[in-house]
Amino acid sequence: MKGTVLIRPKAGILDPQGEAVRDSLAKLGFAVARVRVGRLVEVEVESDDPAEARAALERMAAELLANPLIESFTVEVEAER
Amino acid sequence: MKGTVLIRPKAGILDPQGEAVRDSLAKLGFAVARVRVGRLVEVEVESDDPAEARAALERMAAELLANPLIESFTVEVEAER
Repeated sequence: MKGTVLIRPKAGILDPQGEAVRDSLAKLGFAVARVRVGRLVEVEVESDDPAEARAALERMAAELLANPLIESFTVEVEAER
Repeated sequence: MKGTVLIRPKAGILDPQGEAVRDSLAKLGFAVARVRVGRLVEVEVESDDPAEARAALERMAAELLANPLIESFTVEVEAER
């Protein structure tokens, strides 16, 4: 079962990458107010149960994929859509 | 209006980061088959029209955010959910 972990910088945390992208977009003529850059991790979990897959993905994010000090995460499980 | 560009490595493209994450997850005891690591760019577009915002986000992705040779992207606009 496929799941996605979406990892974003926490609000209030400096996001130099986001600022650099915003400046580049502005130079290209795009009207953007704010940009945040995060990570997307797509995982094929060896489970057929959506709830089990969601629980595993949340543990993966908490234990490895996201840095709890500066990042927050959300989990999406394909079968739940 | 807030939109998100989700950028993933194209299928068949080597994803060393994804493989490294998969190995680390396996060491932590998680049963995962495949992992792909991409980027998530959240943009506050200065527009109130969802279609206009979507068109701008797709142009941003094509012109700057995604590398068309090795990456594919999808766009989500908050007002459309």
